[in-house]
Amino acid sequence: MGVKGLILLAQAAKETGLLVITEVMSPQDVDMVANYADILQIGTRNMQNFNLLEAASKSGKPVMLKRGFSATIQEWLLAAEYVLALGNNQLILCERGIRTFETYTRNTMDISTIPIIEKVSHLPIIADPSHGTGKWYLVIPLALASVAAGADGVMVEVHPTPDTALKDGQQSLTFENFNKLMSQLQPVVAAVARRLAVPPSGK
Amino acid sequence: MGVKGLILLAQAAKETGLLVITEVMSPQDVDMVANYADILQIGTRNMQNFNLLEAASKSGKPVMLKRGFSATIQEWLLAAEYVLALGNNQLILCERGIRTFETYTRNTMDISTIPIIEKVSHLPIIADPSHGTGKWYLVIPLALASVAAGADGVMVEVHPTPDTALKDGQQSLTFENFNKLMSQLQPVVAAVARRLAVPPSGK
Amino acid sequence: MGVKGLILLAQAAKETGLLVITEVMSPQDVDMVANYADILQIGTRNMQNFNLLEAASKSGKPVMLKRGFSATIQEWLLAAEYVLALGNNQLILCERGIRTFETYTRNTMDISTIPIIEKVSHLPIIADPSHGTGKWYLVIPLALASVAAGADGVMVEVHPTPDTALKDGQQSLTFENFNKLMSQLQPVVAAVARRLAVPPSGK
Amino acid sequence: MGVKGLILLAQAAKETGLLVITEVMSPQDVDMVANYADILQIGTRNMQNFNLLEAASKSGKPVMLKRGFSATIQEWLLAAEYVLALGNNQLILCERGIRTFETYTRNTMDISTIPIIEKVSHLPIIADPSHGTGKWYLVIPLALASVAAGADGVMVEVHPTPDTALKDGQQSLTFENFNKLMSQLQPVVAAVARRLAVPPSGK
Repeated sequence: MGVKGLILLAQAAKETGLLVITEVMSPQDVDMVANYADILQIGTRNMQNFNLLEAASKSGKPVMLKRGFSATIQEWLLAAEYVLALGNNQLILCERGIRTFETYTRNTMDISTIPIIEKVSHLPIIADPSHGTGKWYLVIPLALASVAAGADGVMVEVHPTPDTALKDGQQSLTFENFNKLMSQLQPVVAAVARRLAVPPSGK
Repeated sequence: MGVKGLILLAQAAKETGLLVITEVMSPQDVDMVANYADILQIGTRNMQNFNLLEAASKSGKPVMLKRGFSATIQEWLLAAEYVLALGNNQLILCERGIRTFETYTRNTMDISTIPIIEKVSHLPIIADPSHGTGKWYLVIPLALASVAAGADGVMVEVHPTPDTALKDGQQSLTFENFNKLMSQLQPVVAAVARRLAVPPSGK
Repeated sequence: MGVKGLILLAQAAKETGLLVITEVMSPQDVDMVANYADILQIGTRNMQNFNLLEAASKSGKPVMLKRGFSATIQEWLLAAEYVLALGNNQLILCERGIRTFETYTRNTMDISTIPIIEKVSHLPIIADPSHGTGKWYLVIPLALASVAAGADGVMVEVHPTPDTALKDGQQSLTFENFNKLMSQLQPVVAAVARRLAVPPSGK
Repeated sequence: MGVKGLILLAQAAKETGLLVITEVMSPQDVDMVANYADILQIGTRNMQNFNLLEAASKSGKPVMLKRGFSATIQEWLLAAEYVLALGNNQLILCERGIRTFETYTRNTMDISTIPIIEKVSHLPIIADPSHGTGKWYLVIPLALASVAAGADGVMVEVHPTPDTALKDGQQSLTFENFNKLMSQLQPVVAAVARRLAVPPSGK
């Protein structure tokens, strides 16, 4: 995304009171993106782009690190260390699906990752069921599943008219379906809040 | 399981009022197992054992067909046709995890399968987070996730003392944790019941 | 394959002086197939059909065990033990490709398996590039590669007119291409014979 | 690799008459590396680092593009277009193994890729059995297999004392084993030269 797009994003954020998260793809772009964004996103293809991880860390901005689509959990946590080791501890992990032999979905959401990260790490983890499935009608059930499994957040693609979207329309929710997602998430969040307060006993 | 085990299972069922589901592994065992069990289970390694599928179908008993751990959704549904084509339509599918490169878990639960089956098939689908993860502390969050995604049921391994179990102890819940699962499932079931009554609109 | 097909196979073998290898799919068919075949083949979907492995072992006939398309090498060797443990040591392993994310080929031939088996086991191993690739024009190069890697044999599908084959035509060689394979294999066999006589030194 | 390492590499090349190929990891390093190296290597984790591909292309130097360890053949060829589209047609592909469920090897060499690239592309393809297997004793058989399948070249790791190597010692050949590889490759190269001169007839 060029600087024009970043300025528009920042204006939209100011008008709505939202924060901006957007992807940075090269070390030399980190400063420019950090000028406009509240959170820097590292994409799945860059999970092991160590120069980029270090530059993002040094920016001082919070960083969201997507799991590489063929990364093991261990490799993901080791990549996270490149951000943490330079003193930036505002790091969010994001599960977005892994590559398997299944061709019905774009990726296979590895929901078990969510409670594993909760157990072995102190880092928050969010879920991206839009990229994780590639199909809009799977976004709501997988978003609910992610939260039920303990996710700290969910990110979804939304578009006013997915059929005419320049990209990722097939995995985008309409505003109407986004509203459904939000209303259906509430009771699941409530149910899970109860679970997280009562962890299972040792084996 | 030999006939002695089956007799014990049937006695336990009678005393408790529960039904019996147990695995049948060879066509020549179908009659014996069908004598004692209410539901015949076809295991993941036999998903494409077509002789067995046909024999199970002909028994007239309900059949539960586990997904092969490397089967695509399409192959699974085609295997299901071996049961359905012979006139037995009491068929339940069971997602139990697929094999991926991840080694932290025994398998990777493919939760997206649940809403896919709901969409493309009329068959009920249940989830097996015990085999799907291989780790007891992942069973509760993945069970909740499965139900949030729309599963019609959950099967879990339970053992009074998992540490001394002959097999699968690492993925078995204690009675205490089973009770926690049951109480935590209730609000998620309630939340999802609402979702299933309000499907998302066409794209 | 029914008994009529087996009788035809046995006749063809007698006329040509070839041996017969054919698949057996159920324990109850082992005796019938063993009457006509010289070697019993266990297919990829039955690699862990332990009842079948035991019945094949007890037949006393040589057994060829294909690798399950999602089996690790360790699981394959453990399945082989079901044949060996009952006293039948005439066992041949067959690599026929594993399931991966790649969709260009039907399976991914795991050629590294060949020298691994050579190192960790005393069992002979052959390669099946027809099923391993699913495409006839990949059969010759993968057959040569398998032999170069140390395979003890190669099995390929051949058909006089692959375009009209009832099944597997896409992966079948014409007679003409089969002749090419045979003539091209000879110098590779000679080259590798030299390698096998001079193993690499310890690290 | 810093500039000191590059200078040493260039000196070694001058003394021996060899060419230098070395990895470049960031767009901003391309000019420096291109000053000293004859060929720029793009590593598996950067296969889809499009900024880097474009910078490497513009350098005018020959480029070697390793396959991403979870990239399909199609994705690999599409990544190659980033180099070709900017007018640099001195591009070499390198198969170095893909990630699968098998844990015995570090990766699974996808040997079928070699004849596929030969068929669908005009680009030369070489094989890297050191990274492709992760085990030194698999390097020779997989190198022979790659050449038998039609590879245009092989790259292997060599170290005078692999046990004390700073990295990748487990997959490095000693000088003695490297000599064995070279002498064993010769007859396979001769055998395959014959094959490549006589392609199989249309189906």
